[in-house]
Amino acid sequence: MAAMKNQAETVRRVRLYVDAPLAAGAEVALDGAKTHYLANVMRFKAGDRLAIFNGRDGEWRASIAEMRRNTCTLVAEIETRPQQAAAGPLLLFAPIKPTRTALLIEKACELGVSEFQPVSTQHSQVKRIKLERYRAHAIEAAEQCGRLEVPPIRPLTPLAEVLNDWQPARRLLFCDETGGPPALDALAAAPPAPWAILVGPEGGFSPPERELIKSRPFSLAVSLGPRTLRSETAAIAALSLWQATLGDLRDGDSDTIS
Amino acid sequence: MAAMKNQAETVRRVRLYVDAPLAAGAEVALDGAKTHYLANVMRFKAGDRLAIFNGRDGEWRASIAEMRRNTCTLVAEIETRPQQAAAGPLLLFAPIKPTRTALLIEKACELGVSEFQPVSTQHSQVKRIKLERYRAHAIEAAEQCGRLEVPPIRPLTPLAEVLNDWQPARRLLFCDETGGPPALDALAAAPPAPWAILVGPEGGFSPPERELIKSRPFSLAVSLGPRTLRSETAAIAALSLWQATLGDLRDGDSDTIS
Repeated sequence: MAAMKNQAETVRRVRLYVDAPLAAGAEVALDGAKTHYLANVMRFKAGDRLAIFNGRDGEWRASIAEMRRNTCTLVAEIETRPQQAAAGPLLLFAPIKPTRTALLIEKACELGVSEFQPVSTQHSQVKRIKLERYRAHAIEAAEQCGRLEVPPIRPLTPLAEVLNDWQPARRLLFCDETGGPPALDALAAAPPAPWAILVGPEGGFSPPERELIKSRPFSLAVSLGPRTLRSETAAIAALSLWQATLGDLRDGDSDTIS
Repeated sequence: MAAMKNQAETVRRVRLYVDAPLAAGAEVALDGAKTHYLANVMRFKAGDRLAIFNGRDGEWRASIAEMRRNTCTLVAEIETRPQQAAAGPLLLFAPIKPTRTALLIEKACELGVSEFQPVSTQHSQVKRIKLERYRAHAIEAAEQCGRLEVPPIRPLTPLAEVLNDWQPARRLLFCDETGGPPALDALAAAPPAPWAILVGPEGGFSPPERELIKSRPFSLAVSLGPRTLRSETAAIAALSLWQATLGDLRDGDSDTIS
């Protein structure tokens, strides 16, 4: 296998998020963890190439200028993909157990969510979130799936407050476990607009919360079928349907990355 | 919270898979693990009720006749839901790391897969699978999501062999990471038929494998969008789209369980 891989494949396969500004000739110093990954896991040496992005300046081909024990210097060479804005929906979710939240973040990143809004609800078990840990999952997923942006994660906010501060043009796909029209029909009939998707906590929404959500003119309550979906499964399924009807799963054709 | 729950909620909330035949008055002995769950986690006592199913005889309301230290006897009282056949597609997947395979099984169960066919491929890293462990994940997911059947898991079989022994009427949705028409368009235009979904291993299919799959008259290569999806994400997204166009996510309306 190793003998078969060519330089182009290597560049594509290793893709790192970096904090630094990117431009032709820009130098980027990597921290110990990323240096370890390149040197010891990937067996990279000075002169080897990889793809880097920072969420703002597009994707660049970079080469390793210097590899030391705990640090590594990259030089950005050529912009390989221009920056694009994330076009997917905002995801409102009630934080669940850490492993399941990590999963929700990873999968939602892969499926093109533009931003995360954790919300606290009456039945939420989780009262505090670790934003830095959530962000690390989002970065890792973005590196892996080829996205150019890392979806930001907003601070945990009470659901009612998020609904009160709503940007009026944004529509809300409310995944309502008590039922509604099929999600796909509702999305297929929807006018173009910015969107958000809302999934509840493990215990579901309380009846007053459900009424509050449904009373908003921007909300659209839909069903995700007859089985009881876990919170993260509902988020992934709804996002898949959104991307297939209103987003970039409509386009088909070739993968732009591989 | 405890004070608010009523008997109906408790029956619905606790739902166990059992091996025994179910009929009115049938006695069911639970093993130590399930007894521990009922006695110590759920704090159930003799006389308390729960839902049980065995994948063949529908769902039953059962009451606890006797609770001992390491065993517990249930009595089936009333059939609450008649048995239904699983109507979802067969899922062909190349086994990945255990935690990710567990995830794929859990989520595919929640989304109504009818059966699993693990396939070995040229780029598969996993050469042997633990069927019993896979089955435990499927049972747990079926208990949680309210399904009446536990999707069987077939033995690991080489991809070419599975394609050779194909039941001719079954169509195959091939999630091709090199691109194709949008999955939703392809599904929306599809004739009624039994279906299977095929997702590749982490390293993708080899070019000869891809040609082999695409050469089959029953296969339909589709795209799942511009990002590189992990194997389990592709399975979940494809299954969501299948259920929304051809399966029971089309029906909308109320959840039949909660």
